[in-house]
Amino acid sequence: MRNLLFEIAYQGTRYHGYQVQENALSVAQVLQDAIEAVTGSRDDITGCSRTDTGVHANSFYFNMKTESRIPEDRFPIALNHALPPDIAVKRCQEVPMEFHARYHCLRKEYLYRIWNSEIRSPFLDGLVSEYKYPLDLPCLQKATQDFVGTYDFRAFCAAGGKEMETVRTIYETSICREEGDMVCFRVSGDGFLYHMVRIMVGTLLEINEGKIPPDSIREIIEQRDRTLAGRTAKPQGLYLNRVEYGDEWFGKTV
Amino acid sequence: MRNLLFEIAYQGTRYHGYQVQENALSVAQVLQDAIEAVTGSRDDITGCSRTDTGVHANSFYFNMKTESRIPEDRFPIALNHALPPDIAVKRCQEVPMEFHARYHCLRKEYLYRIWNSEIRSPFLDGLVSEYKYPLDLPCLQKATQDFVGTYDFRAFCAAGGKEMETVRTIYETSICREEGDMVCFRVSGDGFLYHMVRIMVGTLLEINEGKIPPDSIREIIEQRDRTLAGRTAKPQGLYLNRVEYGDEWFGKTV
Repeated sequence: MRNLLFEIAYQGTRYHGYQVQENALSVAQVLQDAIEAVTGSRDDITGCSRTDTGVHANSFYFNMKTESRIPEDRFPIALNHALPPDIAVKRCQEVPMEFHARYHCLRKEYLYRIWNSEIRSPFLDGLVSEYKYPLDLPCLQKATQDFVGTYDFRAFCAAGGKEMETVRTIYETSICREEGDMVCFRVSGDGFLYHMVRIMVGTLLEINEGKIPPDSIREIIEQRDRTLAGRTAKPQGLYLNRVEYGDEWFGKTV
Repeated sequence: MRNLLFEIAYQGTRYHGYQVQENALSVAQVLQDAIEAVTGSRDDITGCSRTDTGVHANSFYFNMKTESRIPEDRFPIALNHALPPDIAVKRCQEVPMEFHARYHCLRKEYLYRIWNSEIRSPFLDGLVSEYKYPLDLPCLQKATQDFVGTYDFRAFCAAGGKEMETVRTIYETSICREEGDMVCFRVSGDGFLYHMVRIMVGTLLEINEGKIPPDSIREIIEQRDRTLAGRTAKPQGLYLNRVEYGDEWFGKTV
């Protein structure tokens, strides 16, 4: 028995999120089907995170305890043959048996892509959130810095969130224009509440629209009241972008 | 009556090319439907080029003679509301009545995107051609320079091509690695034969594979024999990227 850690990427458009659900197609179910096709056994897989319907991942990890003897360097190629074109296995490596992709995650980075133009891009349907008004990026960049720190982020958690513990540490945030009309918001932290990044983005957009004062983010956090924060931005722009684990899990191979 | 020139972009995946066809969805038909919905009349449109099934355009022009009084700056917004998300109107401007989007085109640039990795990208299905073997880019970059000049390119024209006149001038070519695993071939010329860019790319890939000698492109051109050139690369990687007209058509407004 080995414990294997897989890095994957996926376009979330067709899926009702990562997690297996009754009567709805999920990324995890499609992965398990492909693994079963390749190894002959339906092993449980443990994802690093849940993602919502329509949310994407540039980098996502899951681990799986398996009796399969497929070598680590062959596993991605074998699985990619069995997977649809919107899911790709990038890497596989053996980790200690006690490794758990969710519990042992130290840091995650999310990316939120905003297509900031009156004219849509015909290549980005489902892959960005469209916003046609001018963005005051210096003002928003300053505001994003107020997310950084260790706080109770209850005001930035969807009402349906089940988390009892709502304190999280945000390490870094930025919002800037990348190629042409694409504006990217990036945020890294030790963990995120349900809809947290999308509510952060919705709050920044409402700051841009003058509906929320630019210097009020700390106060919204302190009030712990969801109704004071902005709207929940659309899932299409959201990407899990980077996931970090401690070096101790990887021996010399990382 | 005005003659209006429109710049558009489209993802070709869903379409059987640009040109209107019986019993198959084309970009031109969808444009005419949208124009009819907006102006109330089904005006003829003249495209700058034909594109094949699955081929994309970052920039494509068509002109239309119309009685519509919609102002030039409002037309893109109105049409985009009536178009599906994989076609976007970027710009509209009035041109002299004698302007013709195909006849008066001076120069076109095509881009061919090759995803050069063993691992697919889940976001690029239909938008690139995949090639998993290492590419000898210095060798290929040198070979591409032999396309530059004015020649009879019959060897780089599909058998089904109807062009009687097969002399074309190629101005510039390049092949280089852009972000990470993406390799881009660019070629500009005064015009292109049926499948010409795709046969150029197929020939470069066969040079990479040692099937065609790197210094034989000029000889293949001289022989005017399609069977000496390489395979026809897939349509998914091909983009009409830039179309140029003489400044004289645009008065002071360009």
